[in-house]
Amino acid sequence: MRVVTFGEIMMRLNPEGYLRFLQADKFEVSFAGAEANVAVSLANYGIDVAFATKLPTHEIAQSAINSLRRYGVDTSKIIRGGERVGIYFVEKGASQRASKVIYDRADSSIALAKKEDFNWDTIFEGADWFHFTGITPALGGDLPEICIDACQSAKKHGLVVSCDLNYRKKLWSREEAGKCMSRLMPYVDVCIANEEDAKDVFGIEAPDTDINSGKLNYEGYTNVAEQISARFGCKKVAITLRSSISATDNNWAGMIYSEGKAYFSNTYRIHIVDRVGGGDSFVGGLIYSQLMEFDDQKAINFAVAASCLKHTIEHDFNLVTVDEVLALAGGSSSGRVQR
Amino acid sequence: MRVVTFGEIMMRLNPEGYLRFLQADKFEVSFAGAEANVAVSLANYGIDVAFATKLPTHEIAQSAINSLRRYGVDTSKIIRGGERVGIYFVEKGASQRASKVIYDRADSSIALAKKEDFNWDTIFEGADWFHFTGITPALGGDLPEICIDACQSAKKHGLVVSCDLNYRKKLWSREEAGKCMSRLMPYVDVCIANEEDAKDVFGIEAPDTDINSGKLNYEGYTNVAEQISARFGCKKVAITLRSSISATDNNWAGMIYSEGKAYFSNTYRIHIVDRVGGGDSFVGGLIYSQLMEFDDQKAINFAVAASCLKHTIEHDFNLVTVDEVLALAGGSSSGRVQR
Amino acid sequence: MRVVTFGEIMMRLNPEGYLRFLQADKFEVSFAGAEANVAVSLANYGIDVAFATKLPTHEIAQSAINSLRRYGVDTSKIIRGGERVGIYFVEKGASQRASKVIYDRADSSIALAKKEDFNWDTIFEGADWFHFTGITPALGGDLPEICIDACQSAKKHGLVVSCDLNYRKKLWSREEAGKCMSRLMPYVDVCIANEEDAKDVFGIEAPDTDINSGKLNYEGYTNVAEQISARFGCKKVAITLRSSISATDNNWAGMIYSEGKAYFSNTYRIHIVDRVGGGDSFVGGLIYSQLMEFDDQKAINFAVAASCLKHTIEHDFNLVTVDEVLALAGGSSSGRVQR
Amino acid sequence: MRVVTFGEIMMRLNPEGYLRFLQADKFEVSFAGAEANVAVSLANYGIDVAFATKLPTHEIAQSAINSLRRYGVDTSKIIRGGERVGIYFVEKGASQRASKVIYDRADSSIALAKKEDFNWDTIFEGADWFHFTGITPALGGDLPEICIDACQSAKKHGLVVSCDLNYRKKLWSREEAGKCMSRLMPYVDVCIANEEDAKDVFGIEAPDTDINSGKLNYEGYTNVAEQISARFGCKKVAITLRSSISATDNNWAGMIYSEGKAYFSNTYRIHIVDRVGGGDSFVGGLIYSQLMEFDDQKAINFAVAASCLKHTIEHDFNLVTVDEVLALAGGSSSGRVQR
Amino acid sequence: MRVVTFGEIMMRLNPEGYLRFLQADKFEVSFAGAEANVAVSLANYGIDVAFATKLPTHEIAQSAINSLRRYGVDTSKIIRGGERVGIYFVEKGASQRASKVIYDRADSSIALAKKEDFNWDTIFEGADWFHFTGITPALGGDLPEICIDACQSAKKHGLVVSCDLNYRKKLWSREEAGKCMSRLMPYVDVCIANEEDAKDVFGIEAPDTDINSGKLNYEGYTNVAEQISARFGCKKVAITLRSSISATDNNWAGMIYSEGKAYFSNTYRIHIVDRVGGGDSFVGGLIYSQLMEFDDQKAINFAVAASCLKHTIEHDFNLVTVDEVLALAGGSSSGRVQR
Amino acid sequence: MRVVTFGEIMMRLNPEGYLRFLQADKFEVSFAGAEANVAVSLANYGIDVAFATKLPTHEIAQSAINSLRRYGVDTSKIIRGGERVGIYFVEKGASQRASKVIYDRADSSIALAKKEDFNWDTIFEGADWFHFTGITPALGGDLPEICIDACQSAKKHGLVVSCDLNYRKKLWSREEAGKCMSRLMPYVDVCIANEEDAKDVFGIEAPDTDINSGKLNYEGYTNVAEQISARFGCKKVAITLRSSISATDNNWAGMIYSEGKAYFSNTYRIHIVDRVGGGDSFVGGLIYSQLMEFDDQKAINFAVAASCLKHTIEHDFNLVTVDEVLALAGGSSSGRVQR
Repeated sequence: MRVVTFGEIMMRLNPEGYLRFLQADKFEVSFAGAEANVAVSLANYGIDVAFATKLPTHEIAQSAINSLRRYGVDTSKIIRGGERVGIYFVEKGASQRASKVIYDRADSSIALAKKEDFNWDTIFEGADWFHFTGITPALGGDLPEICIDACQSAKKHGLVVSCDLNYRKKLWSREEAGKCMSRLMPYVDVCIANEEDAKDVFGIEAPDTDINSGKLNYEGYTNVAEQISARFGCKKVAITLRSSISATDNNWAGMIYSEGKAYFSNTYRIHIVDRVGGGDSFVGGLIYSQLMEFDDQKAINFAVAASCLKHTIEHDFNLVTVDEVLALAGGSSSGRVQR
Repeated sequence: MRVVTFGEIMMRLNPEGYLRFLQADKFEVSFAGAEANVAVSLANYGIDVAFATKLPTHEIAQSAINSLRRYGVDTSKIIRGGERVGIYFVEKGASQRASKVIYDRADSSIALAKKEDFNWDTIFEGADWFHFTGITPALGGDLPEICIDACQSAKKHGLVVSCDLNYRKKLWSREEAGKCMSRLMPYVDVCIANEEDAKDVFGIEAPDTDINSGKLNYEGYTNVAEQISARFGCKKVAITLRSSISATDNNWAGMIYSEGKAYFSNTYRIHIVDRVGGGDSFVGGLIYSQLMEFDDQKAINFAVAASCLKHTIEHDFNLVTVDEVLALAGGSSSGRVQR
Repeated sequence: MRVVTFGEIMMRLNPEGYLRFLQADKFEVSFAGAEANVAVSLANYGIDVAFATKLPTHEIAQSAINSLRRYGVDTSKIIRGGERVGIYFVEKGASQRASKVIYDRADSSIALAKKEDFNWDTIFEGADWFHFTGITPALGGDLPEICIDACQSAKKHGLVVSCDLNYRKKLWSREEAGKCMSRLMPYVDVCIANEEDAKDVFGIEAPDTDINSGKLNYEGYTNVAEQISARFGCKKVAITLRSSISATDNNWAGMIYSEGKAYFSNTYRIHIVDRVGGGDSFVGGLIYSQLMEFDDQKAINFAVAASCLKHTIEHDFNLVTVDEVLALAGGSSSGRVQR
Repeated sequence: MRVVTFGEIMMRLNPEGYLRFLQADKFEVSFAGAEANVAVSLANYGIDVAFATKLPTHEIAQSAINSLRRYGVDTSKIIRGGERVGIYFVEKGASQRASKVIYDRADSSIALAKKEDFNWDTIFEGADWFHFTGITPALGGDLPEICIDACQSAKKHGLVVSCDLNYRKKLWSREEAGKCMSRLMPYVDVCIANEEDAKDVFGIEAPDTDINSGKLNYEGYTNVAEQISARFGCKKVAITLRSSISATDNNWAGMIYSEGKAYFSNTYRIHIVDRVGGGDSFVGGLIYSQLMEFDDQKAINFAVAASCLKHTIEHDFNLVTVDEVLALAGGSSSGRVQR
Repeated sequence: MRVVTFGEIMMRLNPEGYLRFLQADKFEVSFAGAEANVAVSLANYGIDVAFATKLPTHEIAQSAINSLRRYGVDTSKIIRGGERVGIYFVEKGASQRASKVIYDRADSSIALAKKEDFNWDTIFEGADWFHFTGITPALGGDLPEICIDACQSAKKHGLVVSCDLNYRKKLWSREEAGKCMSRLMPYVDVCIANEEDAKDVFGIEAPDTDINSGKLNYEGYTNVAEQISARFGCKKVAITLRSSISATDNNWAGMIYSEGKAYFSNTYRIHIVDRVGGGDSFVGGLIYSQLMEFDDQKAINFAVAASCLKHTIEHDFNLVTVDEVLALAGGSSSGRVQR
Repeated sequence: MRVVTFGEIMMRLNPEGYLRFLQADKFEVSFAGAEANVAVSLANYGIDVAFATKLPTHEIAQSAINSLRRYGVDTSKIIRGGERVGIYFVEKGASQRASKVIYDRADSSIALAKKEDFNWDTIFEGADWFHFTGITPALGGDLPEICIDACQSAKKHGLVVSCDLNYRKKLWSREEAGKCMSRLMPYVDVCIANEEDAKDVFGIEAPDTDINSGKLNYEGYTNVAEQISARFGCKKVAITLRSSISATDNNWAGMIYSEGKAYFSNTYRIHIVDRVGGGDSFVGGLIYSQLMEFDDQKAINFAVAASCLKHTIEHDFNLVTVDEVLALAGGSSSGRVQR
């Protein structure tokens, strides 16, 4: 089984610990991006996975590639060229103080990539699954067309296509997103979203949900998934359910909607180490569970347990093994020392 | 609007993370002091604020000044001379282990300053508000007289005067404090205290309050504020209400007593990053809300939200903006990532 | 009063903060071992305590010795020779992610030590108490016989003997442990265990206890202690009671069974900094309380408060003073700043 | 005496110590730029100095401003707006391995600034000296015209104008530089260059100089300065003379050409801590010596001693005092401990 | 062109900077070994290279693998099993204080590997070159036979075989080394050594060389190479020439003996950052130059320039590109900043 | 053989690496003092050594004690009491930038100690050698009298007395020093000085010596030693000979004058890691060589080699073994890796 993900990988810079940007005289350096994060998740589960993007030739870009190789992601499909690696700055929140992200990603090599940079027939050689997110077309330029190219090629080669809506208001307006994503969704077999995404991008909304409260509206989520599925013909729709008690403590759960039925995971109360990349780790778990042909309940349990663990790991990559996820999904959440 | 604060700025040395003093082979270095902390709060809110003190000419003192300039505090009123910068060591507690502070502040330049070092007419030029705390006269030597000088000059120039009682038992006895503070209070328009201060300094006490429990005695606090107001003629009395569940988790609230009426804020359950400077950040928020002429309820909400955020920030300075405080005071406490 | 503890001291290597092994490019270095940890606890309480072991002559071994001397442990009884210092790697868990320990301790100097390396008459000169744990005989080779030698000599010289069962499944099987420990237990006056130990080593079990739940089975623990006491004639049996809510939050309590009666401590809800060494710090507190002849209730309170504090301290050693433990045992658990 | 400098301030990111980019998982964060570095030098010498630029409103930009305020630079002339702070990455070389700089500065707020952003009459209020470098017009867009505006306004208000040629081949071609700088030079009273700059920008060349050898061609440099002075009418031309033995050891000297005569400093053999910003620190020393009206020999000695010290200081800013520079210029180069 | 190297990869632990072992409370963690270092060199030069060894399945071993993958080494030939990763501790010397290495490598997975663990026909599939060093057979157990197996298989498949003598007196005696290496040398086409190795292993000696002086005995080295070549029939013999002025400054050169003629490189005076792995980086450069079919003079120049650069890089891996090596070999040694 | 040293131990705070005070937001913490440094040297050589002083009871003071215990110094003679531990700040110089030391040591516990705090008969029990330096009486208050007490008691008990003149101009004037030290010198058997000390304290001067040049005036030093010996009757006078090429490179040698004859060591060219404590490490080596009854040439060689090594070690303590010193003194200065 081979997966290809496609998107941007950025340099992530964050102050150490709980320091604010204004206090930092050091930044931790890592590399991340929605689709790269998914690739690393899958590589950690032992899946053959390649990440496609465009990156410059200089050492900063090489470091991005090395960060993927380190965890076993195939980087041979990465095009080299252009000038810059996108950057984002993360300030970790705590208690009532929210985390902050400042993006400096404009004009990166991938954002300026051209249609002809990518030969999808070659990229998808031997692949079974293609994943991208709504961030990739949102980068603008040729990217919407490149994504359509990719989806068409994927379908031609018989790949399953998954897409995480991942709406980013700083990258495009709701109208732009809605228009573009509506062109892409018909190729998508497995759609991942959170409730806000569905509303922001497609205006699909569950009644009576307050994302800042702790209570879940089970029916509402089912309804949202149903609507997405109905409108675009996705086989499965998965939704992450976060309720934020504070920047330090969150409740986390998920659901998958499949063949007219919704399956909900348990809810984990998480004491957060780093929540950036949480959604991507859910996708990583979900794709793995599809490749392994887990039944829907096991699939959502696996995906949520995987992403629960991500919240306890620094930086975006979800460095967990299948055994660790299965142990948690199986109920071992007490955190006793493993000797 | 221009504010002047006056007091000591010390070097703060603390082990990294949760290391105990005995384990430390590095100390984080910052500079802080009750009145300097208030000045930084105000500078972050965009207020023109100067901090007055006396500091040596060497590089350690220069670093103290630079730490204030960095955040926009006017340091041109600082007198240079004397030998040493006071020091305090902070060990961060966790769970049942309390934080520890060891002071090494005797004989600092400010503690040995002379009356003639400070020309208050010059210092208060263009100023609208003067703030000091009970720590400054507690430094001894000429400081009680210098504080009286300052208060008299402030009054002469029409400044509002605020004072945080801030009783420190290591600096003076209750008797000394009571005697000296009773001379200063008649100049004070806005008095800030916690319940212990009022009792320690003036013997003013609310019945039935156990500071180690989690429950607040609303009537008791109103009564304390009333007594202070009645005895010294303060226009407003503000009280911080901390209940310490553990070194890691505190409940935090505040009240303001104004024209015979008490206004209480919401109570925040805080997962603490660093609580030193929490009281000063309350004062910073309170003075800002007075300068902005917020009504009393909004004022106490702002001051408490500001100081709630301080507990999530390393070191003493409260590095938050007006927007961040307003967002929390307005109810956005879920800590969701700001992208 | 002089105590001697005997066992292995290893190099402990752990990534900084919550980094996983796979992310680490630095390890914090400390030295620890069940019996060494107890020695440091006692030294911090002002007790004259020596730690006996065998260590190489190189600088890594010297660093192990220095780490003990630093906190006042007498290291003059340590034999020098052999090739290696055992190592263990610790990865700190968080929330639902469990802590991990990887051992690399085979063939250390102490594991390969010979009976003739230790002259117990000399080692016990002037001593009143001897402590070891089940880990020491589990190291294999001559160690079971060396432990028996030590116990016999201790008895000959009139020392009280305490033993923490500390079953380690990576070091020996339950059968081996049961057989060997059954030979040693007749010399033991004070036995320390957790419920799992008793079951693993001796098949002694309390009915209906789920160590992953939060509820304590008071009668069950009493029953286990009774059985141990009855089978081997121990004067006192102490049991630690941990319920793991998550890797970050644990409940922690203890009991002591003495002359047919069980005394339980309060239960502390602990927000964990580092829980490795928690059991050893309980033993340290327990031995201290026996040396001080505290009554049984005070003894268990002291031991549990001591080990509660350990959970808030980085690395294995419990760097607390008698005053700090007494303050917590006396009810001061709110963690207010000590100025 | 008041100085204004104008240009870009960037975020500087460098791995710790001698780590290569490929090894870094932390970057040290500082802020720097040719003209900002000069401003900090002057502030450290006690000169009233303002830095003008355009910066976004976010926290990364605020950190840049704070880094200037910290050392006493007036930042009130900085315009806020635009999206990004330029970034450059520095990898410190050693011995035969050269240092590397990777720029990511395109589309910064200042590079996209508009003519109308800057009101030079206001900016130059009360100023005596204006400094900029060839990097500022090289940023492109409106910058060449903004620089001409600034120069004209400076002249109108009677300011002395200094310019460091600072040719950067990554920003513009030699032709572009020559054309633009030839328009600006007529306003320049004091020109600073290294021999490469003069050749790259104006084709002015000294015969027989090999910048990689250690020998200085005194006559050649005099000739270059003469030509610059003759062509553009500068009153003084100063040239830095670096001979690079290795990335670790450099010889460093300078000359000033004034009224037909060249004055050379001593040559310092420097064991380098950080050489980035070395040229800017020379300019800082030179401007100071002009403001102080040092004679030409003393001026070049001061400027070279100042910049010699810079090479021993981490990051771009030259954090030295007048006394320290004078001591070195006066011959005290043995580095004995100052107690 | 594909290269396979075979040997041990260990965890390297070193204190930060110039701290001694006794001062360290942190270790930098990297992974290294003579043959792994060569593999990384080659991967950095763009060569397809696999490293073969045996490693456990735990996270410490996985980290070793990840450190190779990060730099592009194929790790698919690594066998998983056994218990431990060998460790070595490095203390960096300075000036008159020598660097120290403490090995803790006994009983690693590779040292205990069995002949049947390695299927050389599979491992050498598609390969052109096989490299190992004298350390691998010195690990004992089955390793000498495994090396003979490997050499025979390499020859059968037409691979060039290179071997670095790398005598380690802590691993085996001169007699053992001589006996074993004499069996392996007949398979070796390219032999690398330093003068001590040749003497230690084979008793081959150049007259009058004092490795602690700075002078090179050109004839002596030629003579040593001639003897090696003559005795074992190697096509090329390369020798590294180090003269140690101090722990901080070394002279470094090399020679290659080929078809009866010796070619010497320039000598570099190196200010050292980290000299561990210097010899391996020479081998990496040499193998690259053979794969590229450089002439002998160019080959030795490349190998020495490559290893000169290694001395300026932290940890064992030589993270340089072909361009960087060629630039230095081409004479650009002044270390001027590359912008 | 047992040695007692007496003086102050301070907290040393220094920025990391080459950062200036103004840049530091972390300080490395260690503890040091002239006599404490000597004690640690001797403990490392295996000598039974106690350090006497007075220190507070708080954790900062306890850390000072622990830093001595760690390296094996007997701290049982330390009196507890008073308020503060003296502090000094060290900024490491480089190249032409000198290191800086800022003292904040006034009113430490030892400086305020009283005559009756020290019972010298008890302190000297079992001791053979007493060492102090001119810094101890320079602390003022009772210290001069306490030193005389100590010397008299030492003589009474038959101890050899050594004193390092160690003149500190910030502590006392030349006149005060001369007067006090002249009272103490008659008790001193072994006097250690540098040429400046002799001149500053006693006006004893060698003609024609420029301490900033690199040349040694052998006759001059002999003459100084002769004068000291003649005036006070010391048996041996040892002088350290430093010539400072830069803050990074120093020449270092020493001489001992004994029975009318001067013995000079070799001169070491040292590339410095940390030179603070260099003189104390010379004393440590000298006392060791006297206790071992080395002949005068071997003694001076040992002391200079020991202190040469100190310059390569971070912080004040000279963490070297007898074997390491002997190896260097025996000529092994090339710094080759010790495997």
